[in-house]
Amino acid sequence: MKLTGIFYGIGVGPGDPELVTLKAQKILSRVDILCVPKSRMEKESLAMSVVRAVADREHNLLELEFPMSMDREILEQSWQNAGRQVAEKLMAGQDVAFITIGDPTLYSTFGYLLRFIKLNYPQVPVEIVPGVSSITACPAALLEPLVEGDEKLAVVPAAYNLDDLKNIIDLFDTVVLMKVNRRLPEIMQFLQQYDNLQTFFVSRCGYPDQLTTAKPETVLAQNLHYMSLLVVKKSKP
Amino acid sequence: MKLTGIFYGIGVGPGDPELVTLKAQKILSRVDILCVPKSRMEKESLAMSVVRAVADREHNLLELEFPMSMDREILEQSWQNAGRQVAEKLMAGQDVAFITIGDPTLYSTFGYLLRFIKLNYPQVPVEIVPGVSSITACPAALLEPLVEGDEKLAVVPAAYNLDDLKNIIDLFDTVVLMKVNRRLPEIMQFLQQYDNLQTFFVSRCGYPDQLTTAKPETVLAQNLHYMSLLVVKKSKP
Repeated sequence: MKLTGIFYGIGVGPGDPELVTLKAQKILSRVDILCVPKSRMEKESLAMSVVRAVADREHNLLELEFPMSMDREILEQSWQNAGRQVAEKLMAGQDVAFITIGDPTLYSTFGYLLRFIKLNYPQVPVEIVPGVSSITACPAALLEPLVEGDEKLAVVPAAYNLDDLKNIIDLFDTVVLMKVNRRLPEIMQFLQQYDNLQTFFVSRCGYPDQLTTAKPETVLAQNLHYMSLLVVKKSKP
Repeated sequence: MKLTGIFYGIGVGPGDPELVTLKAQKILSRVDILCVPKSRMEKESLAMSVVRAVADREHNLLELEFPMSMDREILEQSWQNAGRQVAEKLMAGQDVAFITIGDPTLYSTFGYLLRFIKLNYPQVPVEIVPGVSSITACPAALLEPLVEGDEKLAVVPAAYNLDDLKNIIDLFDTVVLMKVNRRLPEIMQFLQQYDNLQTFFVSRCGYPDQLTTAKPETVLAQNLHYMSLLVVKKSKP
């Protein structure tokens, strides 16, 4: 008899079911409980739709609510609450997989649950299955290398100020700006001061409505999806 | 009849055959020519050993030599030479897959070939299949999230000076230092000036001889493999 279940953090890739790894597919096909973060931004969890496409069985679902809040206390409470629900299944000997679009170590809610389990249930075996991230899936869709040779790469989420961005562009060869949809007009205007940059925009990478362009200034008037990303590259001399 | 073959850049993941994507496996199982970068550092190409584990057929191989040189002219000539060999197969209507450990857009020789084909054979269809990178596979092995929430990530190859590194650590929450084996003693000494950093070292991620430690200072005396990586994280307040 197993004493506790195994806690898996599974990256299912950028959203295209073909970009799931063999390892993720194998674990998703045998795990007892699928743990899905519930948000109000999508009708069905994107990660869940990927799982349905690659694992040909019905899962027992554990939907975890994470409120859209900036209040640290509310967030902390929701993670604790989610952690307790996951722990209950693990303590009953069930294997639990938390699924994440992209990769579980990159901007995923998985990190908070992991911390809770490590701290309160150190006896639980944990395994993280890395996944393809949008950080490389987008350049692949663009047919543009991200970094080569000795180049340095910066990955920056939506929250930063333009002074920081200036310092980052000075130091780095390639900068990836994540979830750039709302700030794109401001950023494109800021980037006009440089004459040695190439910019690429991708939204909904791998979906039928995928949008890729080397002229982000042409999409500013559009209502852009939050799954969007800007790649800023210094031109080579 | 196809006019030309398709040129694929395929990421096969960090080296563990289970971390190949379904898409990579599918293409590797049907492609005519496997194009493998030949180097003198490994007896068999690592990417090739991954392919042998996931695609159950013999491939026609095209081994491309890339000299270990810093001379721009010698490198340029080897890329041109490799590009011409690939183009010959494509022009004969054969599909060619160039395989890369990790991801083809991240520090891969694929970029140079891609540029050659785009420039000289713009009629050739190209597809890049992104792969799991060591940048996330190593934190997965460590069970440590790389970045969360609003944190910024820097990825830095082996070539940089310590002044740059200081600026980068000031601006970023997490810094990944690639191929850190030879410089580890110098870097660990440099990092001693900080009292708010956590450091993690991983080498040979996913292999039987994988080494992970949150105390890199204990492995300085070892002969470290070039497939090694240091994760530097600011401690949370």
